[in-house]
Amino acid sequence: MAPLKLGMVGGGNDAFIGAVHRIASRIDGEFELVAGALSSTPERAKASGEALGLAPDRIYGDFREMAIRENRIKGGIDAVAIVTPNHVHYPAAREFLKRGIHVICDKPLTSTLPDARKLVKIANESDALFVLTHNYTGYPMVRQAREMVANGELGELRVVQVEYPQDWLTEPEEQSGQNKQSEWRTDPERSGAGGSTGDIGTHAFNLAGFVTGLELDMLSADLQSFVDGRRVDDNGHVMLRYKGGARGMLWCSQVAPGNENALKLRVYGTKGGLEWSQEDPNYLWFTPFGEPKRLLTRGGAGARDVAARVSRTPGGHPEGYLEGFANIYTEAARAIRAKMAGDPVPADVVFPTVEDGLAGVSFVDACVRSSARDAAWVKLA
Amino acid sequence: MAPLKLGMVGGGNDAFIGAVHRIASRIDGEFELVAGALSSTPERAKASGEALGLAPDRIYGDFREMAIRENRIKGGIDAVAIVTPNHVHYPAAREFLKRGIHVICDKPLTSTLPDARKLVKIANESDALFVLTHNYTGYPMVRQAREMVANGELGELRVVQVEYPQDWLTEPEEQSGQNKQSEWRTDPERSGAGGSTGDIGTHAFNLAGFVTGLELDMLSADLQSFVDGRRVDDNGHVMLRYKGGARGMLWCSQVAPGNENALKLRVYGTKGGLEWSQEDPNYLWFTPFGEPKRLLTRGGAGARDVAARVSRTPGGHPEGYLEGFANIYTEAARAIRAKMAGDPVPADVVFPTVEDGLAGVSFVDACVRSSARDAAWVKLA
Amino acid sequence: MAPLKLGMVGGGNDAFIGAVHRIASRIDGEFELVAGALSSTPERAKASGEALGLAPDRIYGDFREMAIRENRIKGGIDAVAIVTPNHVHYPAAREFLKRGIHVICDKPLTSTLPDARKLVKIANESDALFVLTHNYTGYPMVRQAREMVANGELGELRVVQVEYPQDWLTEPEEQSGQNKQSEWRTDPERSGAGGSTGDIGTHAFNLAGFVTGLELDMLSADLQSFVDGRRVDDNGHVMLRYKGGARGMLWCSQVAPGNENALKLRVYGTKGGLEWSQEDPNYLWFTPFGEPKRLLTRGGAGARDVAARVSRTPGGHPEGYLEGFANIYTEAARAIRAKMAGDPVPADVVFPTVEDGLAGVSFVDACVRSSARDAAWVKLA
Amino acid sequence: MAPLKLGMVGGGNDAFIGAVHRIASRIDGEFELVAGALSSTPERAKASGEALGLAPDRIYGDFREMAIRENRIKGGIDAVAIVTPNHVHYPAAREFLKRGIHVICDKPLTSTLPDARKLVKIANESDALFVLTHNYTGYPMVRQAREMVANGELGELRVVQVEYPQDWLTEPEEQSGQNKQSEWRTDPERSGAGGSTGDIGTHAFNLAGFVTGLELDMLSADLQSFVDGRRVDDNGHVMLRYKGGARGMLWCSQVAPGNENALKLRVYGTKGGLEWSQEDPNYLWFTPFGEPKRLLTRGGAGARDVAARVSRTPGGHPEGYLEGFANIYTEAARAIRAKMAGDPVPADVVFPTVEDGLAGVSFVDACVRSSARDAAWVKLA
Repeated sequence: MAPLKLGMVGGGNDAFIGAVHRIASRIDGEFELVAGALSSTPERAKASGEALGLAPDRIYGDFREMAIRENRIKGGIDAVAIVTPNHVHYPAAREFLKRGIHVICDKPLTSTLPDARKLVKIANESDALFVLTHNYTGYPMVRQAREMVANGELGELRVVQVEYPQDWLTEPEEQSGQNKQSEWRTDPERSGAGGSTGDIGTHAFNLAGFVTGLELDMLSADLQSFVDGRRVDDNGHVMLRYKGGARGMLWCSQVAPGNENALKLRVYGTKGGLEWSQEDPNYLWFTPFGEPKRLLTRGGAGARDVAARVSRTPGGHPEGYLEGFANIYTEAARAIRAKMAGDPVPADVVFPTVEDGLAGVSFVDACVRSSARDAAWVKLA
Repeated sequence: MAPLKLGMVGGGNDAFIGAVHRIASRIDGEFELVAGALSSTPERAKASGEALGLAPDRIYGDFREMAIRENRIKGGIDAVAIVTPNHVHYPAAREFLKRGIHVICDKPLTSTLPDARKLVKIANESDALFVLTHNYTGYPMVRQAREMVANGELGELRVVQVEYPQDWLTEPEEQSGQNKQSEWRTDPERSGAGGSTGDIGTHAFNLAGFVTGLELDMLSADLQSFVDGRRVDDNGHVMLRYKGGARGMLWCSQVAPGNENALKLRVYGTKGGLEWSQEDPNYLWFTPFGEPKRLLTRGGAGARDVAARVSRTPGGHPEGYLEGFANIYTEAARAIRAKMAGDPVPADVVFPTVEDGLAGVSFVDACVRSSARDAAWVKLA
Repeated sequence: MAPLKLGMVGGGNDAFIGAVHRIASRIDGEFELVAGALSSTPERAKASGEALGLAPDRIYGDFREMAIRENRIKGGIDAVAIVTPNHVHYPAAREFLKRGIHVICDKPLTSTLPDARKLVKIANESDALFVLTHNYTGYPMVRQAREMVANGELGELRVVQVEYPQDWLTEPEEQSGQNKQSEWRTDPERSGAGGSTGDIGTHAFNLAGFVTGLELDMLSADLQSFVDGRRVDDNGHVMLRYKGGARGMLWCSQVAPGNENALKLRVYGTKGGLEWSQEDPNYLWFTPFGEPKRLLTRGGAGARDVAARVSRTPGGHPEGYLEGFANIYTEAARAIRAKMAGDPVPADVVFPTVEDGLAGVSFVDACVRSSARDAAWVKLA
Repeated sequence: MAPLKLGMVGGGNDAFIGAVHRIASRIDGEFELVAGALSSTPERAKASGEALGLAPDRIYGDFREMAIRENRIKGGIDAVAIVTPNHVHYPAAREFLKRGIHVICDKPLTSTLPDARKLVKIANESDALFVLTHNYTGYPMVRQAREMVANGELGELRVVQVEYPQDWLTEPEEQSGQNKQSEWRTDPERSGAGGSTGDIGTHAFNLAGFVTGLELDMLSADLQSFVDGRRVDDNGHVMLRYKGGARGMLWCSQVAPGNENALKLRVYGTKGGLEWSQEDPNYLWFTPFGEPKRLLTRGGAGARDVAARVSRTPGGHPEGYLEGFANIYTEAARAIRAKMAGDPVPADVVFPTVEDGLAGVSFVDACVRSSARDAAWVKLA
């Protein structure tokens, strides 16, 4: 099958996540990058587009221009990947959605809660799909964990422990003038009111919800900005109360030396427990209460169809971050192709939605509100 | 040197912790068990004493009787180990302390805060020593972690993550009629107002304080009793604010399937991070910020004198729980021998004190008060 | 830059390694698959080509036909990937090499030693490049290990322990009639005289040589076929003597339950030791003698340029088997582009060569010869 | 029950293994040290005895004198621990065995094969027991592994991989004049013809045999002395052929930087595999072929009675080297008490015997003979 035609907004030369999206879109051969508005700086947009081998007339200086023209030309893009700083997600997504171009957008959904709400409305009114790259939901063993919980293999859930520590902002990196990543990610105008909560706390919150299927009732958050002059939180402690009675803790930090990208989820129920770590993603620990702990491996004897469906290699051939990310793209491709054929999206296609994105922005908003009120319990707005 | 003469209160035939104390007291040959009031049930006291080879006239039915007589006879006990359910710690310790017999007491200090305060007073007025077996402080690599923090190798501390999950109370074990341990440990009259918070949360709280040297300012606790009919908490989520600005999270649980005794401490500062797990106690992970993670091993190249002093074997010969526990006993012996010789207790002797015990009971009290007020911030009383 | 045009020999619908090569060729966007002789069965060749979206006139029933036509047509393939059973490597590679089409070939080089020697000659006489996919040499931390050894950070090497256990042939899978993989891999006519030694032992042997730079002097091998009726070895024990005095052990097995693809290399010298495991490929353990063990992570503080050059994501974002495999393809692309431009191949391009392949086939031959002589010491032929 | 009275030969002030034996003998309260010939140097013997609190008339300058007098006096020792350098094991053991005093002796049995044979004869003719402290057989999960193999849970055994690397002799420690341990352990007169093979290879060989129940048919050994001037092997590569068709590899090394005491055993059969590591002794990995890997923990859900019987604490409370060692002592005590009572030794008492010791010395002898003949296959003499 011919690959889908993909455009990209953001992701210029020295961006991290743009390159990740491009690889992820390529791994299964489902997408071909043909157009881009890769930077808000025209020269960088042009240079980046050329470096990626885009045709000159499909290198745009502006996402709106790209949306308009790609919508008009024959063979225009089928979908766009939005990989800009957070505050651009909303205006960019709007332009494509309203022209029926499918959107694959990085997380968090938007930098503000009002933007998030508007985007949900626009997405719901559009014929185009909206896919949010909470990429960790693409890992095969995360998919399996979710199925095991849904099957009742853990019994009734009681406790959810999720954490996402990093250490790259231990020092005032954003004040060095050397690191654009750290600059926009700690700038509330571009990133949103949450720092670590927005950047990685949303991933942790999403992952916990994805695996457990639980809906948050309220939270109590104690956020800190440990680094002098930092304008957003760089560490967040959050207690969670889920509907139905399960309780949780969420810790996100960007100032925890020795942690690279240590997202970890543990879920405990009346009948068993599960543990999964992003840095060792091919393993899922499962303990049925009263039995020995089992190490389920991607592709191994304990792996289920739901994991196998999003795997490419046998057990012992580690798949990683990029393959998990690619799974989101490939799920998106399946949905887009169904749409293009006028068919319903297959029931087993799973990807994070605009509503998941709203929940994430609401999570950040609630953390900030709670913390401002001395960790009072608050509901998601 | 002749071993010190030890008595024991509690620790009859089928108790868990009494046997642990006996082994710990023996490992370094510093104590000899010569007397006991091993059970509140006379027949069990007698049978247990005989099984341990105690002389018939030193098997007592009652701790008060033991304290009185051992204080009078020539060659009476030098010290007593109190290993009863929590509510007996106070009345038993009082009898020995006021007669100048050194006390080695299991944790938590007491089952109530008023008892704890009275015991502090009595201990401070006594010539005898009071040693609390927060045994995890006896592990060599915990000692080293403490020294590294004190040396400033982590810089200014920011974040403390401590957890202590178990799974043995996942089901209503205490209602089975088969498990005395679970019965008294979930009975507020005997155990105190805290369940998991008192039984293991106090260990976690103590360990965090021991290693970091930080003093708690306030906490916010959300406690749960997940098992129907359980009278105390079996899961606790606690946010911590330390004096000086460091923040922490503490999780204790006895309903987390797949966790046996998984006490774990992680400490992060401006210059580095440390991680230690009780189930793999010979390892200490240390990451100086910006350098590779290092695995420091007990007895290995990265071990310090402070660890070596409480080790018995070279690296790679794992020491465990009993050796860590024995270190508390051996520290106690050094202090007792100094006292007996009229010398000051050596400056490098380290053991948990009655004040540490009061802090632990205050911690439980604060958790219960906070949780009752919907996780309001409270200070230790 | 426009992708290089790639053809493929073998890799039809249900092959494992063909799909891996296709993904690996795509990850960095350096290759586009445009032609294929995907199966020796014409219908499967056609169906497989169509499933991959190849143009009908570039789906071939025969590799020779493909070599001839692709060499003639404008825009014919720049390179071919050969992913057939082993006995086809030689005849297929010959057809492309002699027409100046670059060859990327799966391992082992050939199924017989005479074929291997002929292929070396042909490759050396051809203007085209020959790249052997000993893919494990593409892992970033393997590259770093190699550099550290070359830098002398381990001192003079003494001991090399390498092993590659699997368990998928614990039972007579090849007799089930259900698993084509197991059929040809245990058929000496198609796979060569070695079973586990050829399939995975060659990887282990290659990896050890790649990292250490040592050249084998002689070996002593004790090979077994534990499964009744199996025609090749399924377990191999080999002692190694390297030139210069280092010694080693190599273990390969396909009958070791609990092992998926557990390639592991350990190297020890006068100044330090290194350990690397394929199933956790982002980690490299390094111990300078007399210092604590260090965990070097891909993308982390201890990673070198040589690792960073073949990485795509920051530390903590695990890269896996496919990325390591892709690195071989991308190195090949750099070399091919240099050739096409008439430039010398850049000095830092590293990929396994036809000589490495000959060494591997010689290793298998030596193992078989030694084992037949009761594990006598033999030199590589 | 009153403790058994123990004497000790060797184990003076700065010896490593003597202190280990003393702790091990104390842990379960089964032995009391009352006499010693602790050093061949009279002043050290005296000083060491006094430091241990022995009565002056039971501090001996000579093991023969001790054997004679302790045999005569009322309340003389019941058993003796022999913890000298290897060459003294035989003459010392002889003196006690022939006087009916039970012997607990460190490994290897003797420094020469003739001595080993003589000792077997003497032990078999004596009424006294001979217990060899291949202490690793005392670990609970090793006991369980043995039972699982005996039960057929692994099916028919095929492959045994055992290794015991250390790094403490990476440099010529024995030439420093600072380390008595390294001096006698590398002196063939005192240690025997094997260096690493005798010191740790015997442990590895014994452990493999203990767990698998397999009997060695022949071996092929390639031994090295990497350090200039070293008089014994410091690295050994050995291939094993067991009776019945199982094959194995054994690696022992004292020059592998980054390894402290990394004894590890892996056993694979037709139905499953087991893995156990001495440095993490509370874990046993078990994989039934075709099922997920299981982590069996000492005291946990997968632990059997045979492990529980030699455990002291619940799961998650790590037991270590000293407890494993103590289990040998406690098994010895059970056997000695039975002998003293005129009862048969209970059927479930398990400890390494003089025959196991002979097998170990024969193993070293065979390694040395094989290596001298260029790794020819040899049988145990």
